[in-house]
Amino acid sequence: MENFRRPSRPKENNEFVFGIRAVIEAIKAGKDVESIYVQRGLTGGIILELKALLKGSDIPVHNVPVEKLNRMTQKNHQGVIAVISSIAFQKIEDIIPLIYEKGETPLVLILDGVTDVRNMGAIARTAACAGVHALIVPSKNSAQINADAIKTSAGALFSIPVCRHQSLHKVALYLQDCGLQIVACTEKTNELIYAPDYTAPTAIVMGSEDEGISNEIMRMANHLAKIPMSGEISSLNVSVSAGVILYEAIRQRQ
Amino acid sequence: MENFRRPSRPKENNEFVFGIRAVIEAIKAGKDVESIYVQRGLTGGIILELKALLKGSDIPVHNVPVEKLNRMTQKNHQGVIAVISSIAFQKIEDIIPLIYEKGETPLVLILDGVTDVRNMGAIARTAACAGVHALIVPSKNSAQINADAIKTSAGALFSIPVCRHQSLHKVALYLQDCGLQIVACTEKTNELIYAPDYTAPTAIVMGSEDEGISNEIMRMANHLAKIPMSGEISSLNVSVSAGVILYEAIRQRQ
Repeated sequence: MENFRRPSRPKENNEFVFGIRAVIEAIKAGKDVESIYVQRGLTGGIILELKALLKGSDIPVHNVPVEKLNRMTQKNHQGVIAVISSIAFQKIEDIIPLIYEKGETPLVLILDGVTDVRNMGAIARTAACAGVHALIVPSKNSAQINADAIKTSAGALFSIPVCRHQSLHKVALYLQDCGLQIVACTEKTNELIYAPDYTAPTAIVMGSEDEGISNEIMRMANHLAKIPMSGEISSLNVSVSAGVILYEAIRQRQ
Repeated sequence: MENFRRPSRPKENNEFVFGIRAVIEAIKAGKDVESIYVQRGLTGGIILELKALLKGSDIPVHNVPVEKLNRMTQKNHQGVIAVISSIAFQKIEDIIPLIYEKGETPLVLILDGVTDVRNMGAIARTAACAGVHALIVPSKNSAQINADAIKTSAGALFSIPVCRHQSLHKVALYLQDCGLQIVACTEKTNELIYAPDYTAPTAIVMGSEDEGISNEIMRMANHLAKIPMSGEISSLNVSVSAGVILYEAIRQRQ
């Protein structure tokens, strides 16, 4: 696994870059941007340049009132603030070939809309312990990887590669093309998590705390797999669910 | 499991339960609810579920401004607070014979010094989902089963019997006398959690977050069992560990 890990810059607090030109240069320089806040109704040639740059990127953009930006910094932000990420995002296309080259069998974890920061951190910690090769999250509707997430992960978010993408559906299709089966962990099936053969290359999908896994991932999954439940409390915390299904995969791979 | 539940003791202290789901589970479990405070104008499917449950009940409901709820607790109450007594502790000696009489194979969980309230709640939630017959905690050096623990448990602490005892060592000896094997989940062994046969009557022991399982329990355990770990972050959160080992037992019992 060591080869897939890159040393991330351990920042305690998120850093800001503000001003349109500075943000453009930050993106061009390949800085890891967590998200960009743009003042609503901002116009002009340079903002068009920024929008052109962001088009097709995996950086989430939030259009917000100027007051929001003023609360973030008292500096002259010119209507644009970039939040620099605490971790270095990676590309799944760079990781999968390396796993195969090392003779290992891919095991990746897709988090489809896990929005709770602590759950994100807890899952990263478990994934690192289980030897998961990469964590894949969507650009939108995902928990910020902030200081809280990193703390809950016990630092695991610095050691496990995190990949961000605009479309999890496209990522899942790419993974299938690479020979991975998609196993969606969901209550909406009768197949138990013990049924799939995880010794094959596998991507496990965990859904959001409220709404579960999105329909397009559910439809394309090779397996829907349910954790058996007893009694009246029939829902596990998503970080516990992730641990249970990941360790079923690890058991089979022992 | 219903047979193992007893009505609550008379209230010693008024306690609050907050969060809609936790309040619903408290009512369903037949807890003695003094009154319920609901934020005026609260909407959504889950609040309708609560109102349907309360319809025809004798529980007084007060619709109040959010400020009233905020004065009662600074926690995230989601617009609903129940004033309720604490849980009723049970005796393990009353529970084990009933499990056998029902023709079931005992599976109990001993928490040896889990002091974090949220971990306690999370473990109870998982234990309830896994169909664990009882949760056993020491009288001292254990997390308070307070409103925070109950919320984190999603109400599970109302449905799973909780037994409190001055000496976990004596409880473990009693369980062995009753035919249960003691499986201690610990890093201090080479045996993996997949080795023991959990189809036999079993008590699983989880240790404290800092110090693990106490020496006297380690010495008398029939099995020491380790969750396999990869990479640099080699410690799971105790609530995730509990989920992983409990669901290995459930897998074997399927």
